Amino acid sequence: MKTRGLLIVLSGPSGAGKGTVCASLRKRLPELVYSVSATTRPPRKGEVDGVNYFFKTKEEFERMIQQGELLEWARFVDNYYGTPRGFVEDRLNEGKDVLLEIEVQGARQVKERFPQGVFIFLLPPSMEELHSRLQGRGTETDEVLRERLEAAGEELAQVHHYDYVVVNDRVEDAYDRIRSILMAEHLKRERLFHDQPDWLEGL
Amino acid sequence: MKTRGLLIVLSGPSGAGKGTVCASLRKRLPELVYSVSATTRPPRKGEVDGVNYFFKTKEEFERMIQQGELLEWARFVDNYYGTPRGFVEDRLNEGKDVLLEIEVQGARQVKERFPQGVFIFLLPPSMEELHSRLQGRGTETDEVLRERLEAAGEELAQVHHYDYVVVNDRVEDAYDRIRSILMAEHLKRERLFHDQPDWLEGL
Repeated sequence: MKTRGLLIVLSGPSGAGKGTVCASLRKRLPELVYSVSATTRPPRKGEVDGVNYFFKTKEEFERMIQQGELLEWARFVDNYYGTPRGFVEDRLNEGKDVLLEIEVQGARQVKERFPQGVFIFLLPPSMEELHSRLQGRGTETDEVLRERLEAAGEELAQVHHYDYVVVNDRVEDAYDRIRSILMAEHLKRERLFHDQPDWLEGL
Repeated sequence: MKTRGLLIVLSGPSGAGKGTVCASLRKRLPELVYSVSATTRPPRKGEVDGVNYFFKTKEEFERMIQQGELLEWARFVDNYYGTPRGFVEDRLNEGKDVLLEIEVQGARQVKERFPQGVFIFLLPPSMEELHSRLQGRGTETDEVLRERLEAAGEELAQVHHYDYVVVNDRVEDAYDRIRSILMAEHLKRERLFHDQPDWLEGL
């Protein structure tokens, strides 16, 4: 009974702890595939093409944009970053689930191009905690902090595009919640029968 | 952050192991409320009104049917059995999840009267296993077995009305799957915001 894998998009405002939760998922759900980004920035020492990133030239990357080969992309300063659709589709077709940990802006693009994904919005346990995380080590100026809070507010407003909301109070609990979402999504009747219309006969 | 509870309807064909899975849920998820049925049959020794059943007279039961106070009901021989809506609604309003373990016919009625419930269809691990479970101790005649298989076939066809499909290969795994479904359903964005439109502000 092999069904197509799920694309799970984990996003949320800066300060929600996406990286920490993702690290816990990597450790505890090794069967999950973690999406590899494409970038035009040069490899750093020890980085392997196809593992850390797919390293592309500017021309290659722009061709990928034009041909719709990216689920999302952005340009930071002089470099492009994006998620190649091909890598994701290949793993899904192998029946593997793919996790994409991504900023809210990128997730919005993925939602447009891959609406059948499972979109999870990660939240900090409280607004107070978010403030304190954004403050960082307290060395930022008031203006920087104000800008960050404003950005976080805009990111929070994007929650309405998501399927699930997970509060990251304890990493262990966030992990358990995300694992449950994955399991439940695989048990959805419509997904089983959409992927395999004669699933019941094959039992 | 108190949200309304969920009504979870666990059903499936005879021989799927509903009772065994339900017993495991009762043991391991004591915070779940198990729906109490109403019946017109007389209490047996040790049975307590409101715990094992709500014991009703025939007149009371028929009044409940007429007033739409039952989520489902059926008549077996001379007695009525049914699920009082009031008990379920009260527990849901207290924020508790209510589990209803029920035959496929009854679940169909609940679906019509309470479509916002979470409908889980329990399946035996294979058709062979279903056959062997329906055979029981092997003392049934071929005709009885044939009737049971036919009934099971009709019940299986009802799977299309359900939200989730859980294969009961091992009770432990079935428990884990149902627990995940419950958790994931509580994390659905639309449920959070439907129950508490200003949920985000309250964080």
